[in-house]
Amino acid sequence: MEQEIFAERIVRVPRSFIREILKVSLDPGIISFAGGLPNRDLFPVSAMEAASARAFELHGRDMLQYSSSEGLLPLRRYIADRYLRRKGLRIPAEDILITNGSQQGLDLLGKALINAGDAVVIEEPGYLGAIQSLSVYRPRFVPVTLADDGLDIAELRAATDGKGVKMMYCVPSFQNPSGITYTEGNRRQVAEVADARGFFVVEDDPYGELRFSGSDQPSFAAMIPERTILLGSFSKIVAPGLRIGWIVAPEAIREKLLVAKQASDLNTSGFTQQILCQYLLDNDLDAHIACIVEAYGRQCRAMVDSIDRHLPATITWTRPEGGMFLWGRLPRGLSAMKLFDHAARERVVFVPGDPFYTARTDVPALRFNFTCANEQTIEEGMIRFSRAFRQVM
Amino acid sequence: MEQEIFAERIVRVPRSFIREILKVSLDPGIISFAGGLPNRDLFPVSAMEAASARAFELHGRDMLQYSSSEGLLPLRRYIADRYLRRKGLRIPAEDILITNGSQQGLDLLGKALINAGDAVVIEEPGYLGAIQSLSVYRPRFVPVTLADDGLDIAELRAATDGKGVKMMYCVPSFQNPSGITYTEGNRRQVAEVADARGFFVVEDDPYGELRFSGSDQPSFAAMIPERTILLGSFSKIVAPGLRIGWIVAPEAIREKLLVAKQASDLNTSGFTQQILCQYLLDNDLDAHIACIVEAYGRQCRAMVDSIDRHLPATITWTRPEGGMFLWGRLPRGLSAMKLFDHAARERVVFVPGDPFYTARTDVPALRFNFTCANEQTIEEGMIRFSRAFRQVM
Repeated sequence: MEQEIFAERIVRVPRSFIREILKVSLDPGIISFAGGLPNRDLFPVSAMEAASARAFELHGRDMLQYSSSEGLLPLRRYIADRYLRRKGLRIPAEDILITNGSQQGLDLLGKALINAGDAVVIEEPGYLGAIQSLSVYRPRFVPVTLADDGLDIAELRAATDGKGVKMMYCVPSFQNPSGITYTEGNRRQVAEVADARGFFVVEDDPYGELRFSGSDQPSFAAMIPERTILLGSFSKIVAPGLRIGWIVAPEAIREKLLVAKQASDLNTSGFTQQILCQYLLDNDLDAHIACIVEAYGRQCRAMVDSIDRHLPATITWTRPEGGMFLWGRLPRGLSAMKLFDHAARERVVFVPGDPFYTARTDVPALRFNFTCANEQTIEEGMIRFSRAFRQVM
Repeated sequence: MEQEIFAERIVRVPRSFIREILKVSLDPGIISFAGGLPNRDLFPVSAMEAASARAFELHGRDMLQYSSSEGLLPLRRYIADRYLRRKGLRIPAEDILITNGSQQGLDLLGKALINAGDAVVIEEPGYLGAIQSLSVYRPRFVPVTLADDGLDIAELRAATDGKGVKMMYCVPSFQNPSGITYTEGNRRQVAEVADARGFFVVEDDPYGELRFSGSDQPSFAAMIPERTILLGSFSKIVAPGLRIGWIVAPEAIREKLLVAKQASDLNTSGFTQQILCQYLLDNDLDAHIACIVEAYGRQCRAMVDSIDRHLPATITWTRPEGGMFLWGRLPRGLSAMKLFDHAARERVVFVPGDPFYTARTDVPALRFNFTCANEQTIEEGMIRFSRAFRQVM
C-alpha cells in the first residue's frame, strides 16, 4: 500500500525519534536532558507583549494581510545590520529571505537544489532535523567525521574527490548534537576544499550568539561568499514559537528559493514578523542575549562539574564554549540505545547518538542538553546516570 | 548552469504571474481587479488585539515555545466543532493537522503523495497556487473542464479511465478563478467517479463560508470520506496574515503528512495559533463572517450590474453565489493577455486566464476580483475596461 499511495521521497523519512523520547519525558519524575528546547523562563514575555500591543497600534491592518514572500523589509534590514555589526559581513537586506524557522530554510534548499541521488556532505554526528528535512529530497548523504576542532579534513577531501558533491551542511558553532566549534584554521581548510571542489557550504548558525567562553570564529561567508548559504534563526535568541528564521544565498540560487517559498506557503506570517520586528526595534537584543548566555553558561559548567564528580573517565565529553548541548563518547562497543533503557529505569533520559547518524546504529555516543535544568537537577540527573552506566558496564 | 545547480523539480515551476501584475497595481492611478486579497477593512483588528493581550496573559510563555507538529489542540477542537455544526461532518480534532495556510497543505500533499509523472486531475481553469505548489513535485496534470454546474463528468470519466490517477484537486465552492460552485448532483457524480477509479479528492474550501446567495452544498467528505482530503483556512474568514490553515486526511495518509510537516518547518507558529484560538473563543465568528458576506455580496452585485450596463453580451460571465471572484469568457480567439495590455493603458487591470491553465496559452478568459473595490471604483473600472475591450474588438 505504501508504495502505491505515497511518494517515494516520504516513505523512508525517519520519524522523529526525539518526539518519542519527549513523550517519556512528560513523566514529572523523569529528569530529562533529552530535549533541545531553549529555556522558557528566559523568553522575553513582557517585552514581546508590549511589542505586540505597539505593533497592533502601528500596523494592525497591514500585519493581518498577506505579505511579501521575501519577508518584511524592516526585519530583513535589522538582520543585515546585525551581520555587519557582529560579523563584519556586508549582506544587503534584499538578499535575506525570511523563513519559518531555519528548518524551513533546509526544506527550501532541498526543494530547490537536491535531485534524488545528489551527494550532500553532512557532519557525523549531524543535526537530525537537517537529516530528516533533506532526506525528503533523497540525497546520498556523505558523512564526514566531526573532530574536536571541526571537520576531519582528510576525510572531507577523500569524500568529495570527484564525487560531484552539491552541498555540505554544517553547524560550525556549538554544533548540535556535539557542542563542537570549528576552529578558524579548520574553517579555512573546509572553505578551501569547498572552493576547489565547487560545492556550496550551508552554514546553519542558530546558536552562534550563545557563546559563554572563548571568542567568535569567522563565518564561511567571509571566506567563500559565493559558495556560502547562511541559515539563521530567532528561535534560540528570542523565541521559537514565532517560527522565524532566514536564509541568505548567492544570487544565482535566491530566485529559485523564492519560488520554492511561494510554492511552500506563500509567505511567513506577516503578523509574527511585525511583532518580532517591533520587539527588536524597542529592545536591546544584546542585553537579552547576555542574560541567556549567563544562564546557559552556568548550567553548562554545572553539568561539566557533575560529570567530573560522578562519571568515570571511560566516557569522554566535549567541552562546549556555547550553545545548548554536550556530547559524550562511550567506551567502544557500548550502545547508547542500550544505556538509554537502563537510564530511563533510573528516571533520567538523554538522546542516544543513533538519530544523528545517517548510516550507523547502536553508536556509543549520546547528547545531553543543559538549558532546561537547574544545577540541583543536573547534579541529581548525573547521579542517576552514573548508576545506569555502572549497570551496563 | 540551471541544470547543474538546481533540482529538476524547481526549474520549470512557473514564477507567480500575479506577483508581476501586483507590481503594476501599486500605481495609485490604476484600478485593480487583479488581486486575490480579502478586504483589509474587514479584518477584526480590535478583537484580534484584545485576543492577543488575553493570550499573553493566559499563555505567554507557552505560546513562545516550540509546539506540537500537529497543532494546538483547542484550535483543532474548534475546527472540528465547526465542521459538525456547519456541515454535519464528524471529524475528530485529532485528525486535523494545522498548516501555514492551506497553501502549505498543498505542499505537504505533494511531498507525501506525488511521484514525478503521477497523474493529478485539476480543474480547467484551476487555482494557480495549487498548480504552482504541486508543480514542484512534477505530476502530470490532467485538466478537466469546469462547466457552470461543476466538472464536466464525461471528460472526468475519460480522463481518469485506466490512467492510474492519484488525486484530484478542486475548489468546489466559489472556485478560484471562476466563482463556480458544483451542484450537489455534480458532486455526487464526481464522488462516484473518484470512488470507482480509486483516487483521492482534495477539496480545498477557503471560500465556502462566504456565501451571499443560494444554499450550502455538501462536502465530498459526506459522500466518500475515505477518499476525501479537506483543506481549510482562516485566511478569508479571519485574516491571512496569521497563515493558519488545516488539512484533514484519511488515516493512512495522516502520518505521512505529519512527517512531511515536521520536515518542512517542525510546527506552525504556536504564537499565532494561540492568539487566533483566543480570538475564536472570545468572539462570534458567524457574526463576523456575516459582515464579510454582506460586503462581498454588495460588491459582487455592483460588479455584475456594471458589467450588464457597460459590456456587450459577447463576453459571458459567471454569476457567483459567494467567494471573491468572477470569470469572463471572451469571444473565441481573443487573447486576454492582449486585452490586458490595452486595459493597463486604460488604467484597469485583471488577471488574464493563462496562469489558471496548465497547458494552454492566450486563452480567451479572465478573472475579476470584487472584494477590494467599492461600488464607485467598480463602476469606473468597468467603463475603462469596456473602452479597452472595444479597442481590441
